[in-house]
Amino acid sequence: MAETITLNPTGNYMPIVGFGIWKVPKEACADTVYNAIKAGYRLIDGAQDYGNEKEAGVGVRRAIAEGIVTREELFITSKLWNTFHAKEHVLEMTKSSLQDWGLDYFDLWLIHFPISQKWVDPKVRYPPALLYDIDKGTMEFENVPISETWIEMEKAVDLGYARHIGVSNFAGALLIDLLRYAKIQPSVLQIEHHPYLTQPDMIALATQRGIAVTAYSSFGPQSFLELGHQGAHSIAPLFQIDTIKTIASAHKKSPAQVLLRWATQRGIAVIPKSNNHDRLLQNLNHTNFTLLESEVDQISALNINFRFNDPADWPGKIYIFA
Amino acid sequence: MAETITLNPTGNYMPIVGFGIWKVPKEACADTVYNAIKAGYRLIDGAQDYGNEKEAGVGVRRAIAEGIVTREELFITSKLWNTFHAKEHVLEMTKSSLQDWGLDYFDLWLIHFPISQKWVDPKVRYPPALLYDIDKGTMEFENVPISETWIEMEKAVDLGYARHIGVSNFAGALLIDLLRYAKIQPSVLQIEHHPYLTQPDMIALATQRGIAVTAYSSFGPQSFLELGHQGAHSIAPLFQIDTIKTIASAHKKSPAQVLLRWATQRGIAVIPKSNNHDRLLQNLNHTNFTLLESEVDQISALNINFRFNDPADWPGKIYIFA
Repeated sequence: MAETITLNPTGNYMPIVGFGIWKVPKEACADTVYNAIKAGYRLIDGAQDYGNEKEAGVGVRRAIAEGIVTREELFITSKLWNTFHAKEHVLEMTKSSLQDWGLDYFDLWLIHFPISQKWVDPKVRYPPALLYDIDKGTMEFENVPISETWIEMEKAVDLGYARHIGVSNFAGALLIDLLRYAKIQPSVLQIEHHPYLTQPDMIALATQRGIAVTAYSSFGPQSFLELGHQGAHSIAPLFQIDTIKTIASAHKKSPAQVLLRWATQRGIAVIPKSNNHDRLLQNLNHTNFTLLESEVDQISALNINFRFNDPADWPGKIYIFA
Repeated sequence: MAETITLNPTGNYMPIVGFGIWKVPKEACADTVYNAIKAGYRLIDGAQDYGNEKEAGVGVRRAIAEGIVTREELFITSKLWNTFHAKEHVLEMTKSSLQDWGLDYFDLWLIHFPISQKWVDPKVRYPPALLYDIDKGTMEFENVPISETWIEMEKAVDLGYARHIGVSNFAGALLIDLLRYAKIQPSVLQIEHHPYLTQPDMIALATQRGIAVTAYSSFGPQSFLELGHQGAHSIAPLFQIDTIKTIASAHKKSPAQVLLRWATQRGIAVIPKSNNHDRLLQNLNHTNFTLLESEVDQISALNINFRFNDPADWPGKIYIFA
């Protein structure tokens, strides 16, 4: 657990491997997070939308209480949901998420999507998920510019609720625009990134502007199978294609480790999830080998610009990646 | 010259075929514009950056003076350059461009790129082009958010300088963000659009939000050959590929007419340029035939997401399309 990324503007470190809790069932989440920390993970990547922050917090606090780690040794990330973008909700919902985790601050607090949905009262439904009217299947939007939300994110830093702030699922021109008015620059950009969607220009942009990149869905279609995602079922699993398998056996590593190393070797953080203890350890301890440059290139050449997590496919058809 | 597009929010019409004056040499521009109008063009698409607005204005005013058209029958488009995005410059430079044309108002006034470059005093160099320091080959930027520029664009409408405003070279998330704060919605989105870069999601977004689309570089690589663009030289000319040639001979039309019809038949405006009188007429009078749906699909299937006009290739490497 040595490798880290230095974040701007603080100079603090972020672990290059984290544990993502998207789709970790609520019932299992406290134990899963506790066990991940016990296994050596120091970064836990959550979000309001994942619906398991309270349970994740139980796991985190148990690990701290047992002396496995201190709060300062952990790096806790969460993400503001789309329904809370308006200035009157951002700080309130930041505090509410901190309360759920039972923490005083987040190490990283992200805007989950550049999508502003109509407010749903957390007393009525939390997390509110995508649909405003569940029966009608409709999404409702609110005209909250990203600049309004960002100003509140900056206040979260000023008030000590977040050590770093950042954005997720942003595309080039919108990120560039945010950088024009940001008083506190985003420390991290979290994006979908795997060999089927390599996004070299987004990574070049982040690098150019000193923003660290976290890749989500490092295993490509794998994460979306259980959601019944059509595209994910129609495409060859990355674990099973020859390029990955050949490189994996050359290094005596698992395909998963190769996919993670392909990112971390280029300085990109990863946040894999696993419900299996062995794989969880494999994912964490994957940085002790080096891919040849030609292997990195071979993997990158698998790119087909295939995006699994695209809000253009949601009911409201939101073309943030057009 | 019948086909038009109805623009929001005014309900006014924009001709679906216009004459674009990018790369029309200054010396020839007055005559070229005059002849285009005489041939029947009613939309002239210019820009501060093209460096020929004064000459275009001479052509326009000659045509009006000779009674070929009235000002009201014409639709004049121009575009604010990157160096004039700051609030203290937008209106001043709008007026300065109107003066160059010798007109009282633009029918359409666009933000040319979502890129804010450092101000260059027009007295020193106009148009300022891309480089701030010509000798060093450097670009310099200014942190002017698009929202600041858009507020001034709206004032241009309020003051009567522009009947409609819009944006060019915007990608999805940034356009969606602009729509959140715009008091006057953009009437038109102008983008690179040809069979090698079909951008279906951008067009779906514009359609969803009631924004008309103007395609530029309808002939793909053709427009970029004379600029020595590497990509343009490395790719098959659209005029010469089988799909286009076969469809063209089936309809007894030229490849150029097929490429234009592929856009206009789907309600997308085009702004071809030609220095040749016959081709100029062919381009204008191309809407009197209908491609089969299967032919439209065949042409769209040529898409390879190949963008010729990408600021990521400019000296400053600006990833607005990442």
